[in-house]
Amino acid sequence: MQKIEVGILGATGMVGQHFVRFLQNHPWFELKWVGASDRSAGKKYREATSWRLDGVMPEEVADLTVQECKPDHAPRLVFSAMDASVATEIERAFAEAGHIVVSNSKNHRMETDVPLLVPEINPDHLQLIPHQQRLRGWKGQIVTNPNCSTVVLTMALAPLKRFGISKVVVTTMQAISGAGYPGVASMDINANVIPFIGGEEEKMQQETQKILGEFRGDHVEPLAAAVSAHCNRVPVVDGHTMTVSVELSSKPSEQEVIAAFREFRGVPQERGLPSAPAAPVIYMEDRDRPQPRRDACRDRGMAAFIGRLRPCPVFDYKFVALGHNTIRGAAGAAVLNAELLSSEGFLD
Amino acid sequence: MQKIEVGILGATGMVGQHFVRFLQNHPWFELKWVGASDRSAGKKYREATSWRLDGVMPEEVADLTVQECKPDHAPRLVFSAMDASVATEIERAFAEAGHIVVSNSKNHRMETDVPLLVPEINPDHLQLIPHQQRLRGWKGQIVTNPNCSTVVLTMALAPLKRFGISKVVVTTMQAISGAGYPGVASMDINANVIPFIGGEEEKMQQETQKILGEFRGDHVEPLAAAVSAHCNRVPVVDGHTMTVSVELSSKPSEQEVIAAFREFRGVPQERGLPSAPAAPVIYMEDRDRPQPRRDACRDRGMAAFIGRLRPCPVFDYKFVALGHNTIRGAAGAAVLNAELLSSEGFLD
Amino acid sequence: MQKIEVGILGATGMVGQHFVRFLQNHPWFELKWVGASDRSAGKKYREATSWRLDGVMPEEVADLTVQECKPDHAPRLVFSAMDASVATEIERAFAEAGHIVVSNSKNHRMETDVPLLVPEINPDHLQLIPHQQRLRGWKGQIVTNPNCSTVVLTMALAPLKRFGISKVVVTTMQAISGAGYPGVASMDINANVIPFIGGEEEKMQQETQKILGEFRGDHVEPLAAAVSAHCNRVPVVDGHTMTVSVELSSKPSEQEVIAAFREFRGVPQERGLPSAPAAPVIYMEDRDRPQPRRDACRDRGMAAFIGRLRPCPVFDYKFVALGHNTIRGAAGAAVLNAELLSSEGFLD
Amino acid sequence: MQKIEVGILGATGMVGQHFVRFLQNHPWFELKWVGASDRSAGKKYREATSWRLDGVMPEEVADLTVQECKPDHAPRLVFSAMDASVATEIERAFAEAGHIVVSNSKNHRMETDVPLLVPEINPDHLQLIPHQQRLRGWKGQIVTNPNCSTVVLTMALAPLKRFGISKVVVTTMQAISGAGYPGVASMDINANVIPFIGGEEEKMQQETQKILGEFRGDHVEPLAAAVSAHCNRVPVVDGHTMTVSVELSSKPSEQEVIAAFREFRGVPQERGLPSAPAAPVIYMEDRDRPQPRRDACRDRGMAAFIGRLRPCPVFDYKFVALGHNTIRGAAGAAVLNAELLSSEGFLD
Repeated sequence: MQKIEVGILGATGMVGQHFVRFLQNHPWFELKWVGASDRSAGKKYREATSWRLDGVMPEEVADLTVQECKPDHAPRLVFSAMDASVATEIERAFAEAGHIVVSNSKNHRMETDVPLLVPEINPDHLQLIPHQQRLRGWKGQIVTNPNCSTVVLTMALAPLKRFGISKVVVTTMQAISGAGYPGVASMDINANVIPFIGGEEEKMQQETQKILGEFRGDHVEPLAAAVSAHCNRVPVVDGHTMTVSVELSSKPSEQEVIAAFREFRGVPQERGLPSAPAAPVIYMEDRDRPQPRRDACRDRGMAAFIGRLRPCPVFDYKFVALGHNTIRGAAGAAVLNAELLSSEGFLD
Repeated sequence: MQKIEVGILGATGMVGQHFVRFLQNHPWFELKWVGASDRSAGKKYREATSWRLDGVMPEEVADLTVQECKPDHAPRLVFSAMDASVATEIERAFAEAGHIVVSNSKNHRMETDVPLLVPEINPDHLQLIPHQQRLRGWKGQIVTNPNCSTVVLTMALAPLKRFGISKVVVTTMQAISGAGYPGVASMDINANVIPFIGGEEEKMQQETQKILGEFRGDHVEPLAAAVSAHCNRVPVVDGHTMTVSVELSSKPSEQEVIAAFREFRGVPQERGLPSAPAAPVIYMEDRDRPQPRRDACRDRGMAAFIGRLRPCPVFDYKFVALGHNTIRGAAGAAVLNAELLSSEGFLD
Repeated sequence: MQKIEVGILGATGMVGQHFVRFLQNHPWFELKWVGASDRSAGKKYREATSWRLDGVMPEEVADLTVQECKPDHAPRLVFSAMDASVATEIERAFAEAGHIVVSNSKNHRMETDVPLLVPEINPDHLQLIPHQQRLRGWKGQIVTNPNCSTVVLTMALAPLKRFGISKVVVTTMQAISGAGYPGVASMDINANVIPFIGGEEEKMQQETQKILGEFRGDHVEPLAAAVSAHCNRVPVVDGHTMTVSVELSSKPSEQEVIAAFREFRGVPQERGLPSAPAAPVIYMEDRDRPQPRRDACRDRGMAAFIGRLRPCPVFDYKFVALGHNTIRGAAGAAVLNAELLSSEGFLD
Repeated sequence: MQKIEVGILGATGMVGQHFVRFLQNHPWFELKWVGASDRSAGKKYREATSWRLDGVMPEEVADLTVQECKPDHAPRLVFSAMDASVATEIERAFAEAGHIVVSNSKNHRMETDVPLLVPEINPDHLQLIPHQQRLRGWKGQIVTNPNCSTVVLTMALAPLKRFGISKVVVTTMQAISGAGYPGVASMDINANVIPFIGGEEEKMQQETQKILGEFRGDHVEPLAAAVSAHCNRVPVVDGHTMTVSVELSSKPSEQEVIAAFREFRGVPQERGLPSAPAAPVIYMEDRDRPQPRRDACRDRGMAAFIGRLRPCPVFDYKFVALGHNTIRGAAGAAVLNAELLSSEGFLD
């Protein structure tokens, strides 16, 4: 089987580097094109990039020549790791020119005609695409994945949707890798907690409602649940941990809730998409798990880990959730979206 | 003025060391007696104690001879820093023998006739003492201070009591010093979060209701509010940070809530008790405060710091609270209790 | 090819767990026997063991029944992860009973007739074995690997031996995983440095001289170089970093030294032993590498990483070295020793 | 007594903030003038400054109006906390205009006619001032304090000078606060070691020789000792720890060396300068001290702490040293320099 050529918009930044690493040895996709700012264009990726991830830069990418972020000679499928300050225009230009833009940027996520996808949860939201193309006169398209905290929360909530989710209070303890590079100053976070992440709480509240919402022909009807997020930065390298209290209309038993977590599967599992975890949600029995340093990297960083389900004196249940913010929360999420697109025939 | 002689039960442990340090240069109390296990009794404090706190052991205490934890020659006022495994019997023996036991241990906190005090909040709960003495046939007495997380939460909630507190969801991010020594293994917490602290959530839920409850002759009627706590350990040295969502019956405005925090004062402030902070609750304007490493030690570690008051999509308001767990949450709390007892004439 | 059955002495402790993990999917060895204290014997490994490593316990080991540490039914080849307090007697009993004991314990390392092996450096020291067996009347044997810091230092020095090493001053910054579990208290190491590790400096000084020494019929003549070690604990999870100043008799150029690092190979590379890194020493050009969190895990944790070679105003050269302390410094070192033994025919 | 008015050049940066805090309640000096870049000039200090230190901005400084860094109306005594990129010209302009510039910047430290002072060690180097003024035609003057690592090393070495220092190998483990703000990215240093700090090793080597050198009429003859520094960044907030191996010509006994550390005193102690520690060097007996988090802040951060003196297999002795990098290594060092100048009559 011929691999599909792919490109990365914003390939030299930290999110771009996560894409480069995640795409290494991908069975369907082959990274052949890296785009970045005009300042980097024309250089070898090796020279244009300060590699910030653990380990060293993959050799096969190091010799690619960085391109300007223009649609001309880019592959049809491009992943966008662009900074929010420039993503809007560039992603639109690519979609207009017929490219399939699978974006990790926040810019288009909340637009009515743009799918905000978690393939295990709402693959049917892809039906927004024809509407998006008609409305905007595009040959191409934009699909997006959620914010790195939202994806963990929604993967934890999706199995509970059948019980009727009406209220959610969530507090995050987020890893420093979520802030990119140089990101958080060590003087701010060493042996400290920063109880604020700009824009994060709003994103978690709105994106969660959209992802868990229902496709209605030309838009998504958001889930009618109140969601309140408290977002904090903690001195952890990778992995966003969160505590969740949730009100459930149908008052399931603890066993039913745990079974719902454990049995949860989606289209990626059914179709065996290459980046899909065997089970999207893993419920852990140990009383002090999941933990970011010990669990986030399991299952290639693509699963959500849940633990400590117990009754909540205020709502029905409370629990702990964890996911890898730069993999399932960013690069891995986008690649799984592209795999879904491919399995749906969008890349044919 | 003659200083009042005081002793410490469990003086060689880590909480005991916090008492030793906090009592240095106290204007009313003079540490003259240190009690510990039989193994240590007879040794100089210097030899019996591995000093674990920052800095070095106070010279004036180093030469005290460690005593067995028996009431015989101990001062009338003793602070208890005893481990929960032995505190019940020893504290009772001292109270029975006529001592005033000001305890940081959890053992007696929830007993019906034992005051669980935060002097700014419920000084009237001291009226349980005559009842306690009558019921138990004691000449002495036991008063307690709350768990290190509870004290911060209750100081944050007390100013809001006038608005009618009905529901509270709180998530803590607690410092490692709260677990004593050796406490948490570095392999468990370095660059990690542990989403579990044994017994902590139950304590926060029950103690909060008792502290904010009403004295009713021979018992305290707990506050009729549902409280749900999620407790986590984070790699911070001192200072417990927590996010709080709260439902308030009277629907105050943001300005009214902030004013309530800022204007909150209690008996310790009115009487100018030596360890009382000028204001028990300090509301910070900066959008990313309070922070444990930067704020917990301010005001000698005796204030609670609040920030980020904002509407909560699920309840009425949400905010961040912080306090110093080994000072306001332990040694300082107990010393302030003793100061309140003294100012009420209990030590005459 | 039939795999060789192997066992682990002290399998439930933290070093034992590292062996369990490192032996997963080993092409030559199959873990069939786990020994531990009498307290654990008879239980399933799953029940006897609190798994402390990142990720979860390998399923295929979880169901093994823990045995007492007696030679009876153990495989011929056993790895020893025993605590120093019990290793001496038990390892001897196994060797006497005909077992090949490949030990990570410190107990026998400095005995005259026991090989202290780094397979890339001194495979000829295996010639001590016949002498050891004769002297002790053993059918079996004991071979050892060095302390976790020593192995990194000796891998960095071995390529320089041809230039005549006369003086070495080394300062280590060692990871917390080197202290086992619970090991270092978080209150001791969070945002701190502990400038002392009991016994470590002596080990580094003596073991280095033995490993780099010459086999002389019935003993090893230690390298006649003065070695001075300063050992420190730093808040790093895995990977011991060290700065080294070295005096070299033949005054090589910088290029010659770097070439010596890069070209260094040994028997494990020549024979392609399964756990051998492609190159035992990797010289990094970046001015701020190697770094423990970013580099220690590369090459499966089996290589030593060197950087920043530059002239030393006091000696000839100075540089930085790094290695993974629980892999190349413990479990991986012992497994490579066993692979060397196998390739030498000792297991036939 | 009338306090002497002082100013700070570069008052809004992180080093400037350390000056502001250290000068609070100073018995001799009163901060009345704060200078910063043109961008900040004209604003209140409160508005021009993002306060990065623990705690909050001193109220009495918050209302000062930030001035341009021009000599016109500035006090005669100014502390320079300027960034190296601009310090050269501005400090010279102030000195030329008659100001006494007490600088923490590196720019003029190594100039032949500029004193590089540690008041306990080389107060006689102040005799360079008349020469400096003659040579440059200045009415004012510049005096400097060393790099934050150098000051700790020289305070540790000064007591040993009598034994004849010939060789020094030092490895530092430096706190993140030494890099200013934002300084080191948390992604670089969280649970990691960075074995490189730009320019630091050269500074430690050269400055140490100058500080411990002899005043010779119009210059300082550097100490004829070889000094080799290895500089590392570790995840510690405040306090630079270092291991030192030293060759001493007169071969003193361990007792003599420890006595030399303990008895070391200088002009600041003799004259009781306000910021002078009671003893500049404190030798600690505990086998695992000094430690940065536990010891750096003792004695107001103005002492150097030494521990673990023991024979060195390569040289004569080795030991551990520690000092507070932003106090004794920066703001406190400069203020002590100014106190020395005052006590010498330079401010009359």
